Amino acid sequence: MISVGLIGGTGYTGKKLIQFCARHKGISEFTIYGNSTAESMLCTIFPEFEGQIHNRPVLSSQDVSLEHDVYFITLPHGGALNFVPKLISAGKKVIDLGGDYRLDSADSYKQWYGIEHTSPYLLNSKLYGLADIETDAYPMVRLISNPGCYPTSVLLGLLPLVNNHSDCILSVSTAAYSGTSGAGKSPRSDLLMTEMEGNVKAYNVNNHRHQPEILQMLEKFGLSSPFSFTTHLLPIGTGIYTTTSVHLKSALDQSDLVHEYTRFYENKPFVRIRQNPPDLKWVTNTNFCDISVSVKDKTLIITSTIDNLIKGAAGQAMQNLNLLMGWDESISLGLNRKELNYASVG
Amino acid sequence: MISVGLIGGTGYTGKKLIQFCARHKGISEFTIYGNSTAESMLCTIFPEFEGQIHNRPVLSSQDVSLEHDVYFITLPHGGALNFVPKLISAGKKVIDLGGDYRLDSADSYKQWYGIEHTSPYLLNSKLYGLADIETDAYPMVRLISNPGCYPTSVLLGLLPLVNNHSDCILSVSTAAYSGTSGAGKSPRSDLLMTEMEGNVKAYNVNNHRHQPEILQMLEKFGLSSPFSFTTHLLPIGTGIYTTTSVHLKSALDQSDLVHEYTRFYENKPFVRIRQNPPDLKWVTNTNFCDISVSVKDKTLIITSTIDNLIKGAAGQAMQNLNLLMGWDESISLGLNRKELNYASVG
Amino acid sequence: MISVGLIGGTGYTGKKLIQFCARHKGISEFTIYGNSTAESMLCTIFPEFEGQIHNRPVLSSQDVSLEHDVYFITLPHGGALNFVPKLISAGKKVIDLGGDYRLDSADSYKQWYGIEHTSPYLLNSKLYGLADIETDAYPMVRLISNPGCYPTSVLLGLLPLVNNHSDCILSVSTAAYSGTSGAGKSPRSDLLMTEMEGNVKAYNVNNHRHQPEILQMLEKFGLSSPFSFTTHLLPIGTGIYTTTSVHLKSALDQSDLVHEYTRFYENKPFVRIRQNPPDLKWVTNTNFCDISVSVKDKTLIITSTIDNLIKGAAGQAMQNLNLLMGWDESISLGLNRKELNYASVG
Amino acid sequence: MISVGLIGGTGYTGKKLIQFCARHKGISEFTIYGNSTAESMLCTIFPEFEGQIHNRPVLSSQDVSLEHDVYFITLPHGGALNFVPKLISAGKKVIDLGGDYRLDSADSYKQWYGIEHTSPYLLNSKLYGLADIETDAYPMVRLISNPGCYPTSVLLGLLPLVNNHSDCILSVSTAAYSGTSGAGKSPRSDLLMTEMEGNVKAYNVNNHRHQPEILQMLEKFGLSSPFSFTTHLLPIGTGIYTTTSVHLKSALDQSDLVHEYTRFYENKPFVRIRQNPPDLKWVTNTNFCDISVSVKDKTLIITSTIDNLIKGAAGQAMQNLNLLMGWDESISLGLNRKELNYASVG
Repeated sequence: MISVGLIGGTGYTGKKLIQFCARHKGISEFTIYGNSTAESMLCTIFPEFEGQIHNRPVLSSQDVSLEHDVYFITLPHGGALNFVPKLISAGKKVIDLGGDYRLDSADSYKQWYGIEHTSPYLLNSKLYGLADIETDAYPMVRLISNPGCYPTSVLLGLLPLVNNHSDCILSVSTAAYSGTSGAGKSPRSDLLMTEMEGNVKAYNVNNHRHQPEILQMLEKFGLSSPFSFTTHLLPIGTGIYTTTSVHLKSALDQSDLVHEYTRFYENKPFVRIRQNPPDLKWVTNTNFCDISVSVKDKTLIITSTIDNLIKGAAGQAMQNLNLLMGWDESISLGLNRKELNYASVG
Repeated sequence: MISVGLIGGTGYTGKKLIQFCARHKGISEFTIYGNSTAESMLCTIFPEFEGQIHNRPVLSSQDVSLEHDVYFITLPHGGALNFVPKLISAGKKVIDLGGDYRLDSADSYKQWYGIEHTSPYLLNSKLYGLADIETDAYPMVRLISNPGCYPTSVLLGLLPLVNNHSDCILSVSTAAYSGTSGAGKSPRSDLLMTEMEGNVKAYNVNNHRHQPEILQMLEKFGLSSPFSFTTHLLPIGTGIYTTTSVHLKSALDQSDLVHEYTRFYENKPFVRIRQNPPDLKWVTNTNFCDISVSVKDKTLIITSTIDNLIKGAAGQAMQNLNLLMGWDESISLGLNRKELNYASVG
Repeated sequence: MISVGLIGGTGYTGKKLIQFCARHKGISEFTIYGNSTAESMLCTIFPEFEGQIHNRPVLSSQDVSLEHDVYFITLPHGGALNFVPKLISAGKKVIDLGGDYRLDSADSYKQWYGIEHTSPYLLNSKLYGLADIETDAYPMVRLISNPGCYPTSVLLGLLPLVNNHSDCILSVSTAAYSGTSGAGKSPRSDLLMTEMEGNVKAYNVNNHRHQPEILQMLEKFGLSSPFSFTTHLLPIGTGIYTTTSVHLKSALDQSDLVHEYTRFYENKPFVRIRQNPPDLKWVTNTNFCDISVSVKDKTLIITSTIDNLIKGAAGQAMQNLNLLMGWDESISLGLNRKELNYASVG
Repeated sequence: MISVGLIGGTGYTGKKLIQFCARHKGISEFTIYGNSTAESMLCTIFPEFEGQIHNRPVLSSQDVSLEHDVYFITLPHGGALNFVPKLISAGKKVIDLGGDYRLDSADSYKQWYGIEHTSPYLLNSKLYGLADIETDAYPMVRLISNPGCYPTSVLLGLLPLVNNHSDCILSVSTAAYSGTSGAGKSPRSDLLMTEMEGNVKAYNVNNHRHQPEILQMLEKFGLSSPFSFTTHLLPIGTGIYTTTSVHLKSALDQSDLVHEYTRFYENKPFVRIRQNPPDLKWVTNTNFCDISVSVKDKTLIITSTIDNLIKGAAGQAMQNLNLLMGWDESISLGLNRKELNYASVG
């Protein structure tokens, strides 16, 4: 049993982390550190926790204890730079849910995030924790950079293809749609119910920070063809739906492809290969990523969908914790029938 | 460990029952019986169950086995009449989630449901299972009639008041608002997203079947003042919000009242008395009923909210199962931290 | 043809006023005065106006010209106090859409709005402009106080009853539900799409500013029975739905009542008496108020619904302008087939 | 002034057509012909029309009079085949809003719609009425095939590019998202509010009837590069949002491109070129198509959005009527300030 510190834990992602920690049989204790919410009681911030999760004060992130075994960090970009080097030096394990350690290059970080990286030496020793991609790196790392929500959905959908057929790809175009929770809990006029009801809009076109993160992985798996990535807001709170159109240089076979995808994820319980395009709601409140592929001659359409706060953030972070500790990767994530057997009732 | 039969289990309520059964540590096995869905595979009906709940065929409700220990029935009204007498005769325990056994009087049943009751002798031996109201009747019954969704929300909000102050009540008026899942999964034009987005409407005004069910309980607790009950549809899938306005003959004190409500439910983990009106979303995907009371002179406003499919149907049914079996009433319902410690992540 | 000044015109209500002014055949010119939006171009604030409404700068409300004939004021409470006395002294006509002149009593104003009234002498010379209630006062006034959104919906539903049957009323209880646009365009965390999707909540229970405004009118029409009023937020942008439950001292007849309601509004084109409870969406984007009444013995349920920004604000204000000028009350509001014959403002 | 026959006019598109006809100053009379709704009164089918649009019975489509000047047909595919040849023979003008005459080839029609075309001789004499694309064909035709909703959005966004730069295009990928009204008013379980709230799903992947319709036009304008088209359902009633990713063979310049787009539509009042990606809601209830283009090196993203029932159906049909009659193309569509000066149909 371990002790966990949650730094910056009272946004939408923090809320999910708290819920997962509370029911995780390997976690004996967790402490929440916040900024604006420091000194508030947890059930005042989240009244829905009343009667379910032990109430406690949020401590100040000025006073993070070094007594915990593992730390989850959910801070705006730049924030983790103040904690990670210290914690790693102290021999701790760290899972950073922000963008500060995702890119391998400090130059690229500066270009996309507008901040000078102060611990670039950690960029290459970290593991980019796309938890459903097989790797034997977990036993050797102490810093995990948890992938962005869009990259998780896009990469899980594309990597099996790129892995096997990169030479065959003429071009790749991803249209990604996200619920508004991805934009956080800060007050904003443009995300009011009044504005977003019945609305959709593209944003950060040709200029989204998740693009270099996606490309970095696609290139590692061999992609050299042009790639585009366009993000949109949906009139829902939760979920990401991504549709990737791949134009091929030569035709692929539908059943071969489904077989390859199935095999690629055969040991990974949270990826489900679907025969038809998934509903976003099949994955809401779960750690699943549902994927379908449809090829017709040289046109290949990949749809993949996740809960942006779970598989795209807190759920994948818990899965990373489990992998980091050498535990069953699904603990607390809802797959063991009589023990913690569900992702949710929802 | 018991074996459970779910008769009529593939609607919205059935789906929740299946999820609760799958994770209930006291249930070793459950079998699903359906009509239109008989012979379909469970994960074809509910693709979201894939990878979470063991796939299995739905059997025909023509062939319900008598080998199970307990039966849940979720059928349109009239449907349970064909099963309950048989099962009770066979010594089984039955929890009926429909309306067939809720009213105590066969005449009233005929008036409101338009059907002649064929087992009126069971109406008085059944327990009306409002699970958060203390009773010592559970050990003595085998038939539980699970309350309607609106009655659950309205009664949990009103009974503490009526119990203590019935003489003081001039009039009671309830406005109840429900998500569309309460109307079921059958195709209907008027409940299409296109129609209901941004919409609200009252329905069955002065003529809702849940009214006599509510009145029956209010009168048992001593109410003799006029009561009205108006139902509405909300542009959401899940949840019920009820606001009850009570005009009093003499003023009551706010803090006394809150104290009374708190004490009324002090041993019941699924009722939370709130200082301010609850958000409906605090209870979505949970078995909680959140209640607030606000009195100013002789005007008393009670708000209460539930998830119509859980506390208003499947969750209360599981709570009733637990009480019927003499188990901890929260098993499978999400309150025990390391065992099954959550109602959901959602 | 008149010139119009819109003071504070760039919120949700202001937007609708601009649309109505732009198409009103009696208005030759309108000028928009704002605070935070001063010096912005109209089509920058409202990109949807591009190509439809002549672009122009918003002027500063510091520099309101006295050259206009009529002024609409849409400011937070307290704001109109700085303009109305001056404009009235200058011989202008004023329609105030805020709360500053709605209550007849300066004491009551102070109690509910927390501000000392600086022009109490105008409170009794103003007309409370509930435009669908017949009055011969319009030719004699220059200041119209436009009713609140909730009061419009509640009063149009109740006044015919109170007018004819006040002695028969035991108690009145209103549950009113509003879309989020009623709370304005300022950034707020609790009204984000993420928070309000699938949510409902009561607010300001036993303490809403519209209650004294409603009571003031009900008492003028003869009500002396207890009245309660509870407000809620809906997960939609636009619209108000109110359900009023009246307990009667003696039974009324359904068809008599419908007849009375129909006659009460027989010359008013924007009130529609419905045989069944209306859908909120029937009135969205229109100046209609749809009302149904249902009586069963001594229980009477009134449902009424409006678009909170049109009938509950800008539409009623235009109707008041038309009545004030002695014009057809429906000009610019969408009822004349070949002239301005359309349903909505959008 | 003309007389109009609306055949099949009581679905969502028919409703909009009726509203446009009712306020069109060039239409003296219109008659509605239906199948399942024959003999119903218009205001029973659409209660929101009460008090706005003259009530009248729907006549049977068995008895379509030949006395009208122009006919609009809104029938499921195959339906128009029974009316168009007769009406054209009788010298009438016809605007068909269905798919029966959109494709130029009877073979292609059979392949995609599964029906033998019975009047293939009309396929080449019809005009494919993409009303915002300049053409001098209107005076010479009597049959207009109104484009599909998706094709309207996709083609208006792509044609300026293809027209000028087809040689430069490596590949084109469109992700198109539609509200549920596009699926019509028939009862369907999968489109219930309960199912679609918070949901998104791709459908008809690599197999949508609008794909050959789009390709037919793109090829006429010179496209020879690979094109993909993927359709999705959104959790909203109304609107289409399309994002098209074009990979280029060589870089284009952003300001040149915006200039080209602006010039391409310079005489067309219903196309607005935006500097940033539009909000879908800017076009809801209007006949506008809003478009933005963003190019960065060799990656070009086009977003375009329409109201699927107006610009994507009934609004474009009215614009086609105006062009067919030689009238101002915006009559009844909301652009003339004091005459019919408003944004929307609602």
